[in-house]
Amino acid sequence: MVYTYLYNAFKCATMQFLRDHFEKLITLTDKEFQYILQFFRSRRIMKKQFLLQEGDPVTQEYFVVKGCLKSYVLDSEDRSHIMQFALPDWWISDYQALVTQSPSSMFLEAVVPTQVLCITREDKERLCAEMHKMEHFFRIKNAYGYIGLQRRILSMLTGSAKERYEQLLQQYPDLFQVVPKQDLAAFLGVSRETLSRLYSKNK
Amino acid sequence: MVYTYLYNAFKCATMQFLRDHFEKLITLTDKEFQYILQFFRSRRIMKKQFLLQEGDPVTQEYFVVKGCLKSYVLDSEDRSHIMQFALPDWWISDYQALVTQSPSSMFLEAVVPTQVLCITREDKERLCAEMHKMEHFFRIKNAYGYIGLQRRILSMLTGSAKERYEQLLQQYPDLFQVVPKQDLAAFLGVSRETLSRLYSKNK
Repeated sequence: MVYTYLYNAFKCATMQFLRDHFEKLITLTDKEFQYILQFFRSRRIMKKQFLLQEGDPVTQEYFVVKGCLKSYVLDSEDRSHIMQFALPDWWISDYQALVTQSPSSMFLEAVVPTQVLCITREDKERLCAEMHKMEHFFRIKNAYGYIGLQRRILSMLTGSAKERYEQLLQQYPDLFQVVPKQDLAAFLGVSRETLSRLYSKNK
Repeated sequence: MVYTYLYNAFKCATMQFLRDHFEKLITLTDKEFQYILQFFRSRRIMKKQFLLQEGDPVTQEYFVVKGCLKSYVLDSEDRSHIMQFALPDWWISDYQALVTQSPSSMFLEAVVPTQVLCITREDKERLCAEMHKMEHFFRIKNAYGYIGLQRRILSMLTGSAKERYEQLLQQYPDLFQVVPKQDLAAFLGVSRETLSRLYSKNK
């Protein structure tokens, strides 16, 4: 009984988190949100567990409710290069593989214990086709994502390691609480030693 | 009379080019396309003319019909860093400024004589709100754009200058016909000397 109560409270909080996320850009009736919910499936994964590994078929997109995920590629010398982190309220997948329906070129791994809501590509497309406001939501989300990547490219082209580090710290201070230094270095494209130097200067 | 005929033929070709572009992802009736067309305005600019300069208000997005545009920032030492090229069939603007309604942080300049179709932010939003299929079109376009930027980031993180050059050559061979070497170097984030070395090796 207590378990059921806790389970329902947990489920409720998760659902509300998703609803709040949508309602930053669109408004939904209870009925509409109930309809949308059926397309999502909750999943919990442990630290260092994979949602995707290189070569896997990619069928889903993930919305982070708790924890943190990272997507990365391994180069020919097994060095990891981080494409994206995803904290709560962020979406993540191997988008190239998802859209082109090709095998994953990335790893998608939990940095800490993580809960996600998953939606398949087909269900997302169906939801967008059936509900104009969901199509609008994802168009605007994509536009913000595009801008974020443009900013990252500019900081890679123009900024020194120090500037890139400070920009990341300013934009996403939460990342520094969750993500190990070596992952931040792999995201910024600097060595771990360089990052440590920047860290100590910043204290 | 001949002039009117030529003008109409030119206008027709431009309109058909835009329609073909939309119809790669959606289908449109003649009536729908006529409705969409009223939101676009044609503009021709000379080589080295600007559509945007740093500090300008950004109100429009541009669809390239002929020619080539480049968007770039200048760093504190007046070096240019190229964010994007846009060949025919591509969209370009300073998206961060457009979405956040802040002044442009970029320059948008014609690499060669160029014709664009312009649409304002308000008109695009109106079009998307009124026509679900246009909202769909731009969501999918954004998704492709996002993937393109992710690919570029990965090539910046993992690739040598040589690999980045070869990847660009393979993906966008047309760019090499139109864009001067110094612009390609500013896009790849390498010196002009490095690019010249890569060029000569590739012949």
